[in-house]
Amino acid sequence: MNMYEEFKEKMRKLSDINHSIAVLSWDKEVNLPKDSAPFRSQQIATLSGISHDLFTDPAFGELLENLNNDSSLNAKEKKNVSVTLKDYKQSTKFSSEFVIRMSNLVSQAYHAWLKAREENNFDLYIEPLTALVAIKREEAKILGFKVHPYDALLDLYEPGSTVAELDVLFNDVRNQLVPFLREIRKMDQINNDFLHQHFDENKQWDFGLDVLKKMGYDFDKGRQDIAPHPFTINFSSQDVRVTTRIDENDFSNMCWSCIHEGGHALYEQGIPPEEYGLPTGSSASLGIHESQSRLWENHVGRSKNYWKYHYPKLQKIFPENLSDITLDRFYDAINKVEANFIRTEADELNYHFHVMIRYELEKMLLNNEIEVSELKHFWNSKYKEYLDVDVLDDNTGILQDIHWGHGSFGYFPTYSIGSFYAAQFFEKAVSDIENLEKNIANGQTDELLHWLRENIHKHGRRYEASELCERITGEKLNFKFFMNYAEKKYKEIYKMN
Amino acid sequence: MNMYEEFKEKMRKLSDINHSIAVLSWDKEVNLPKDSAPFRSQQIATLSGISHDLFTDPAFGELLENLNNDSSLNAKEKKNVSVTLKDYKQSTKFSSEFVIRMSNLVSQAYHAWLKAREENNFDLYIEPLTALVAIKREEAKILGFKVHPYDALLDLYEPGSTVAELDVLFNDVRNQLVPFLREIRKMDQINNDFLHQHFDENKQWDFGLDVLKKMGYDFDKGRQDIAPHPFTINFSSQDVRVTTRIDENDFSNMCWSCIHEGGHALYEQGIPPEEYGLPTGSSASLGIHESQSRLWENHVGRSKNYWKYHYPKLQKIFPENLSDITLDRFYDAINKVEANFIRTEADELNYHFHVMIRYELEKMLLNNEIEVSELKHFWNSKYKEYLDVDVLDDNTGILQDIHWGHGSFGYFPTYSIGSFYAAQFFEKAVSDIENLEKNIANGQTDELLHWLRENIHKHGRRYEASELCERITGEKLNFKFFMNYAEKKYKEIYKMN
Repeated sequence: MNMYEEFKEKMRKLSDINHSIAVLSWDKEVNLPKDSAPFRSQQIATLSGISHDLFTDPAFGELLENLNNDSSLNAKEKKNVSVTLKDYKQSTKFSSEFVIRMSNLVSQAYHAWLKAREENNFDLYIEPLTALVAIKREEAKILGFKVHPYDALLDLYEPGSTVAELDVLFNDVRNQLVPFLREIRKMDQINNDFLHQHFDENKQWDFGLDVLKKMGYDFDKGRQDIAPHPFTINFSSQDVRVTTRIDENDFSNMCWSCIHEGGHALYEQGIPPEEYGLPTGSSASLGIHESQSRLWENHVGRSKNYWKYHYPKLQKIFPENLSDITLDRFYDAINKVEANFIRTEADELNYHFHVMIRYELEKMLLNNEIEVSELKHFWNSKYKEYLDVDVLDDNTGILQDIHWGHGSFGYFPTYSIGSFYAAQFFEKAVSDIENLEKNIANGQTDELLHWLRENIHKHGRRYEASELCERITGEKLNFKFFMNYAEKKYKEIYKMN
Repeated sequence: MNMYEEFKEKMRKLSDINHSIAVLSWDKEVNLPKDSAPFRSQQIATLSGISHDLFTDPAFGELLENLNNDSSLNAKEKKNVSVTLKDYKQSTKFSSEFVIRMSNLVSQAYHAWLKAREENNFDLYIEPLTALVAIKREEAKILGFKVHPYDALLDLYEPGSTVAELDVLFNDVRNQLVPFLREIRKMDQINNDFLHQHFDENKQWDFGLDVLKKMGYDFDKGRQDIAPHPFTINFSSQDVRVTTRIDENDFSNMCWSCIHEGGHALYEQGIPPEEYGLPTGSSASLGIHESQSRLWENHVGRSKNYWKYHYPKLQKIFPENLSDITLDRFYDAINKVEANFIRTEADELNYHFHVMIRYELEKMLLNNEIEVSELKHFWNSKYKEYLDVDVLDDNTGILQDIHWGHGSFGYFPTYSIGSFYAAQFFEKAVSDIENLEKNIANGQTDELLHWLRENIHKHGRRYEASELCERITGEKLNFKFFMNYAEKKYKEIYKMN
């Protein structure tokens, strides 16, 4: 076997183990009997340990170094090797002592978060979170960075992203979106109460399946199930599963989570199966992944064109709820803008303030500018500043997200990055595809899917996110595309001139 | 860590991997999207390889040898070590060359079986099955045996069982059951047509869940799903899952498969969770496992007492089908005896001829007494001799079972052994538990479950099957218990005197 074949074989084996972990995790979320969690967690931990040992095996590192100097590889092969070598180096930087210490601190923080949520009291979270932030600062040092310690952690979730770049983006958010939302607040507000009537569970479920089918989600290569928190997971590009949840008193909950997860799933189903296990067989970054879900959720699924086709069907399914509601009223209602404390319930504009606040706080924490004990004060004042809301209590404020309790610092920005990529990609798709918006109004999104497949999905992790963005749109990620989209759409909805 | 702790830790890790394989296999049967099978098979193969490498690691063998000479272990620990050492020695007997050759021959035979089934033509199966039988003869030699080569393979499925013992059992079957069934055939036959009316799928499903609950199956430690072939699988004693299938035109299909799998599942749920990974944390043998499913399916689930309690409920659920059918008629119908070509559709008496025929053929094949090319001739003539049926064609005859195509020779006898153990255990339970049959008639089976837990479940693999049987009943497995049960029950049903 030549070296590259040996590399592929090892990557396939690793991928088999990691996808097995994914199956166990999916089953844990979707099917697990009440008493089964401890053994399941142990089984996942065992497979994770095996995967880690295999990946950080020094012999594998040697193979990667040798391959990295092998001039006979073609460009794609070179990329697969260099990306894997980068991952390898990252994984081998940490001593077992450090990994165990981190794992214990994460576990303590997670349980403290649960406890603090129960008592609606951030104070209970301060001590373990302080310890966790301390080791995160240590982690950043071990990983290494050029300018800002937060860069080291951002790179784990969105390779290549830096504080310098994100500051530009979030400055734009602050400078452009804050005043725009202030304007919206002055206009007549939208009543969307009818979305909160009773919508039968089984009918919602069937509609969700239909939505997925129409998007091009392939049920021969996946399935939808119910789970407490909607997510997408893949065990290969031939088995990409989505989950949703149904609230009988809130139609929005199921519908846009279906479209959102469907967007993630189309990405995974579009990755070439023959690249299984290799970087070219996995997604480019969390931000690019989120761009796919947001593009479908917002640019398609919250557009008037999309509902020109789907709304009459929806009215037929729920005549008692919707027969008196015009398409225009429905469209306005599903795009209602309203400041709120809770990130996961935010509209597509306010959403970015929620992310920005977490970004700013994480950045300061990592750079020793603030301490965890001051976090709540800054949280609440930033919510007042950007969203003009007074946080009610810790549970609807600083305790609302689990991410920190999982040790995830640097993750939140990928949510906004994803939306901004989505806007930039969608504008390009509209200009590339003749009559795209007209076709969407006729229920046809296959050309859009084809465009996404060709421009994004099929490359896997061949190009770093920013490189991919430049290849597709001719320029780097720029907030202006999102702002253009937002202004055009919401000025019309809120009758602003 | 002392040696025994090291052993336990290694066994826990192995068990985590093997149970992960089980999760992937369960998902494959229950949930798998159409196009996902190849990657899933690959993932299972990778985990299986890792498990095999870990188990056959010479350092582990050394640890086992050292522990086996460690006089400080208590009796239970000694047993765990000696059983594992036996398994280890068995696993390390085969060269990789042999394992790969076997795997290829099994794969070829399996595909040939599928093809042969498609064309209803045994001839297409002869060549690959001949090659498979040849390597099975080789396997028996490598494993080693004292008397008969088939003993080596029997020991893989039912440790300790031999041709010498099985010949005694099946001689009894031949000498006692053949004439008894001939007598039954002379009596008035039972009409059970009403079981083949339309029975609503959802109502059947709910009834099945109720049956499981009443048996004591714990839904906090398991779940039921639909699968093409009913099976039980466990990922720990805290997660034991059953599957069933529903035929709207055959009530029997779902009902007794639920009770049968429920019996298997109660065994697994009764194994002490603290023994996870150790022989004392797994089942004693396939025969003992089958004794649990058969005891519930036949001795409980096909008894009149059981239906005294359940039949009125069933009549309420399906009044249009059953309101005119008396309990006596229902009881007779579910115990109708009728010779048939198909093993999986056989009644509880004729069933053993199906097993015996396979046993006799496998025994001769392993001992070079017949060749695969002669198999069909012997098959058909034995069906004529024992069941008095003329086999219609290859698909309803020699091609009906997948077992040989999976390389399983020595498996079939465990089905009959299981039934015979069930009869022997149940007779003892009736004598041990005051008013057991009366309690069953009142819907109470918790004392029976407790008895099974104490006598069988909680021991795991602590005792070999025959030892367990002697501990419980005071004697070795003996066909007379089954024959007593059969005569008492069927003489009444068929009004023979």
